[in-house]
Amino acid sequence: MKSKKEESELGFGTKTSSQRSRLINKDSSFNIDRIEQSRLGSVSIYHSLVTMTWWKFTLFVIVYFFVINILFTCLYYFTGPEGLKGIEGTTEYDKFFGSFFFSTQTFSTVGFGSISPSSHTASSIAALESMIGVLGYALATGLLYGRFSRPKVRLLFSDHAIIAPFKDGKAFQFRIANKMRNSQISDMECRVTLAKLENENGVMIRRFRPLELELKKIVFFPMTWTINHPIDENSPLWGMTEKDLMESDAEFMILLNGFDDTFSQTVNTRYSYTYEEVIYGAKFISVFGQNKNGQVVQDLNKISQFEKVAF
Amino acid sequence: MKSKKEESELGFGTKTSSQRSRLINKDSSFNIDRIEQSRLGSVSIYHSLVTMTWWKFTLFVIVYFFVINILFTCLYYFTGPEGLKGIEGTTEYDKFFGSFFFSTQTFSTVGFGSISPSSHTASSIAALESMIGVLGYALATGLLYGRFSRPKVRLLFSDHAIIAPFKDGKAFQFRIANKMRNSQISDMECRVTLAKLENENGVMIRRFRPLELELKKIVFFPMTWTINHPIDENSPLWGMTEKDLMESDAEFMILLNGFDDTFSQTVNTRYSYTYEEVIYGAKFISVFGQNKNGQVVQDLNKISQFEKVAF
Amino acid sequence: MKSKKEESELGFGTKTSSQRSRLINKDSSFNIDRIEQSRLGSVSIYHSLVTMTWWKFTLFVIVYFFVINILFTCLYYFTGPEGLKGIEGTTEYDKFFGSFFFSTQTFSTVGFGSISPSSHTASSIAALESMIGVLGYALATGLLYGRFSRPKVRLLFSDHAIIAPFKDGKAFQFRIANKMRNSQISDMECRVTLAKLENENGVMIRRFRPLELELKKIVFFPMTWTINHPIDENSPLWGMTEKDLMESDAEFMILLNGFDDTFSQTVNTRYSYTYEEVIYGAKFISVFGQNKNGQVVQDLNKISQFEKVAF
Amino acid sequence: MKSKKEESELGFGTKTSSQRSRLINKDSSFNIDRIEQSRLGSVSIYHSLVTMTWWKFTLFVIVYFFVINILFTCLYYFTGPEGLKGIEGTTEYDKFFGSFFFSTQTFSTVGFGSISPSSHTASSIAALESMIGVLGYALATGLLYGRFSRPKVRLLFSDHAIIAPFKDGKAFQFRIANKMRNSQISDMECRVTLAKLENENGVMIRRFRPLELELKKIVFFPMTWTINHPIDENSPLWGMTEKDLMESDAEFMILLNGFDDTFSQTVNTRYSYTYEEVIYGAKFISVFGQNKNGQVVQDLNKISQFEKVAF
Repeated sequence: MKSKKEESELGFGTKTSSQRSRLINKDSSFNIDRIEQSRLGSVSIYHSLVTMTWWKFTLFVIVYFFVINILFTCLYYFTGPEGLKGIEGTTEYDKFFGSFFFSTQTFSTVGFGSISPSSHTASSIAALESMIGVLGYALATGLLYGRFSRPKVRLLFSDHAIIAPFKDGKAFQFRIANKMRNSQISDMECRVTLAKLENENGVMIRRFRPLELELKKIVFFPMTWTINHPIDENSPLWGMTEKDLMESDAEFMILLNGFDDTFSQTVNTRYSYTYEEVIYGAKFISVFGQNKNGQVVQDLNKISQFEKVAF
Repeated sequence: MKSKKEESELGFGTKTSSQRSRLINKDSSFNIDRIEQSRLGSVSIYHSLVTMTWWKFTLFVIVYFFVINILFTCLYYFTGPEGLKGIEGTTEYDKFFGSFFFSTQTFSTVGFGSISPSSHTASSIAALESMIGVLGYALATGLLYGRFSRPKVRLLFSDHAIIAPFKDGKAFQFRIANKMRNSQISDMECRVTLAKLENENGVMIRRFRPLELELKKIVFFPMTWTINHPIDENSPLWGMTEKDLMESDAEFMILLNGFDDTFSQTVNTRYSYTYEEVIYGAKFISVFGQNKNGQVVQDLNKISQFEKVAF
Repeated sequence: MKSKKEESELGFGTKTSSQRSRLINKDSSFNIDRIEQSRLGSVSIYHSLVTMTWWKFTLFVIVYFFVINILFTCLYYFTGPEGLKGIEGTTEYDKFFGSFFFSTQTFSTVGFGSISPSSHTASSIAALESMIGVLGYALATGLLYGRFSRPKVRLLFSDHAIIAPFKDGKAFQFRIANKMRNSQISDMECRVTLAKLENENGVMIRRFRPLELELKKIVFFPMTWTINHPIDENSPLWGMTEKDLMESDAEFMILLNGFDDTFSQTVNTRYSYTYEEVIYGAKFISVFGQNKNGQVVQDLNKISQFEKVAF
Repeated sequence: MKSKKEESELGFGTKTSSQRSRLINKDSSFNIDRIEQSRLGSVSIYHSLVTMTWWKFTLFVIVYFFVINILFTCLYYFTGPEGLKGIEGTTEYDKFFGSFFFSTQTFSTVGFGSISPSSHTASSIAALESMIGVLGYALATGLLYGRFSRPKVRLLFSDHAIIAPFKDGKAFQFRIANKMRNSQISDMECRVTLAKLENENGVMIRRFRPLELELKKIVFFPMTWTINHPIDENSPLWGMTEKDLMESDAEFMILLNGFDDTFSQTVNTRYSYTYEEVIYGAKFISVFGQNKNGQVVQDLNKISQFEKVAF
């Protein structure tokens, strides 16, 4: 009994909400709300810049570029644009744009020289801007590298998990595939925890039960893997009907980790199936086939395909 | 008895100081003094530059920038500023500042050209400075990336550890929370070692005793975790009163490590509670609550809150 | 029997193809064909750029450089080359090439200034190009670092695996060597899985059987290691003749991993021997010898050398 | 007996050389000679550039800078220095040096513009050089970062290992200290293997025997650790005299690894003591003391100090 107790807290608490909701979102984040004073929580800016989408990141870079340049344009303009020689035109409009273009040329260190600082003030501001510019690009280098080199497992999960016939009984199964065509994973390991409500002295409490897998780890993961939990007497699923799954608000929480061969780094990914995403009585259709040369092929389109079976 | 012996050295020595002091400081460093000849110890400059505060680092960059530029300014000035053409003004003051601005333009590789080297000497110095400049910025890129990408677990510890009622007995407990809003940790593992003075043949000797935890490792760490050491007959805390804790100068040394999902790296953190930071007879107040939508929320502000209880 | 079952899926499926082919290619990739809708599979561009050959990568950089510069040349040219002052010559041909050289000088941020933007349009395009230029080189920095720092084990495998006399019986053996002269590996671990066809109820099914090694892991890997699987009663090879190996389409799948001392990273490598690459009845010739100073030397040229023996 | 056999190969071979020499050098490299055809072995250039000393690296950078610039200087000069405008002076000497300075200004992308390309040929060469320049500095960035961020454990080993009295018997001991003042290591693990000659059927063969340590791993490594192998009946050192150690050409091979807190990376280090570096009958002097404030201090200068004792 102790081993069951062991997983029973898990940081999600045992309280059940009046509104049913999943514990792990489809994007692998935890579905939990935080209340906190600002001094307690914190956000890593680097984390955010590295994990945001490319659209947001590009926008961030452009905004950053404009804000810095407008700032320095104002500095040149209000400390006297006559400190810059080579600006064509004599209107204020021309002077402002001349200052702006000089700023962009300084910030990117291209420094054509057609516009150049002549006063000490302008020269000093330009020295500062070029230094900030190069440091900014140093930062950009780090961020771009951080974004690109961040290891990711991109796994494709079957749309549904299933309760399938297995040997003389049943098994809980789901299927994963490696989405990436050009990366390979070794030592892929899977752990599944079942979150379900249990009646303890008349109170419904959420408990977390680890599920024993037929095969916890595979040495090679060429493309697909069907994870299989046989439902025997030791399984927390033993004797549970489809209705029981629903009433206990069951959620299957999954943690997968493996070793990415290309980058020699351990990578991991989270996923979950709620009871609504589990098909009771089904069998996965094989992804294996033969091509016209007689070679074995795997059809990724079939990853979620199953057929209904009766027990 | 052997397993107890096993942790008994631990690199802190068994000697007790006349002045009581903690073994692990609140900033997670070890509270120990070194005596050494300079040839024995060493300091990694990169370590220092990557771990210093941002204020110090910014100051370092600015000082570095000025030192290099003043140095090259002097080189241009004393090898004859007439090697630079385009300097406006004819006073020594103008020539010195002209040399300085030329230096900044060369060092940052902006190179406007309004001031440019004409003599072989000035051209050579400029070639050297631009090379040093780019290498300097290469260095800055590495340092900035090193600073940003350094994995950190920012954990919030409850202000106090507590001795709480647990089942039919007592337990040593403390609570942690993930401070970072945008990072998630898997496979969080905790190890606690109790450092206490023990009377061995009349001599007080400091011994280190590992504490068995109810749950050593959690697969998911969404936000909070209460670490729990049940005080049973095998516990080094068995039968110890509040006074015993004080007299044995007890310190609970904590090592936590987990796998950061965003950067796919193992991260770890140290902490400790001295006997003065342990509340004898208390119970943590739950951090879980419900928001107005009926969703479960965790209140980080409550992480250190407990209520006194009698045994 | 359960432990045998455990490795029986392994993601390669149990179907046998009409055409015999190896499971792991000589370049360590998996020999499996994918069928997929484009939305399912994906390719990491960074993965590709970091793992492609240096020839392809150099070509990619040159093509990238030309495409960007031609693009911007056209922008300058068609928005009016008169926006650029300093172009020598007056023919369209001169103007186009002037625009092109201005573009290269802007993109690399060298910005001589002999050609410089004078109109607002040209200045704006130049500002954009210099920004893209620096970001492009930031990217190049990341890619070059990613390519260089990617940890690799470069292992040399003996051309053949052998079935050798061992103690009173036989053993399956192959030999590896560290190709790299200037890197060292600790904690080298080897796992071998035998893929073979087995007759189950009249159907030939491919099964995967782990092979027990005499020594699974070595602490130090100075240069060579002979991996040895003794063929005892528990071995899936027990009682198999050379003909059996062929008929069961045997393939020995190998996973090696170790800790690279220089970069402090775990590295791994895959390899396989098909039955055609296994010599039945042979003994490896020792790679150890003495040089003229009496010092032990290892001769890498002998790594694949064996002599035939009869059982 | 099997467990003893298990370590008996280890990649050093069993052959003994006529000339006695250590297996692991003091710089942690393996003392073994390779013979190989050039196609078999290979060297990672990045490995070399990252691990060479700073003096060599600086020299490499300077040589690289000069070679590239001289090369491009010749290109400009021999394709006609009149393609460059702005060179002062008319002698060939002036033209050559003008070409050289133009080359340095292009390579570093400083591009003053006082000398600038006017012909198509010179413009094209300059476009190429600036591109190579920026890529070169991209490379430099990667190399500098690789050099700085390479994790290192800098451990101080006691000059000698000792055979010390321990409980009722003896123990093999040595002492290590963390040289770095500003880095901390967790989960420090030590493994010791004894290499010694053994008489097997009249032939002296080198065998490798693992030594059981009293404490294999420590959670915290604040500064020093005395590694201790008790010599009991199961120890390969059981019953060996000082003379036996010498005659068996004993060498104690050490592998240490731990987790660097600052960089969150596993680091490891190798070391060895030959029989000549083992003191038979000695006791380490404690490194612990008290400073004038009564605080415990560790004296690194005492790390190698011992006193002779009789058994």
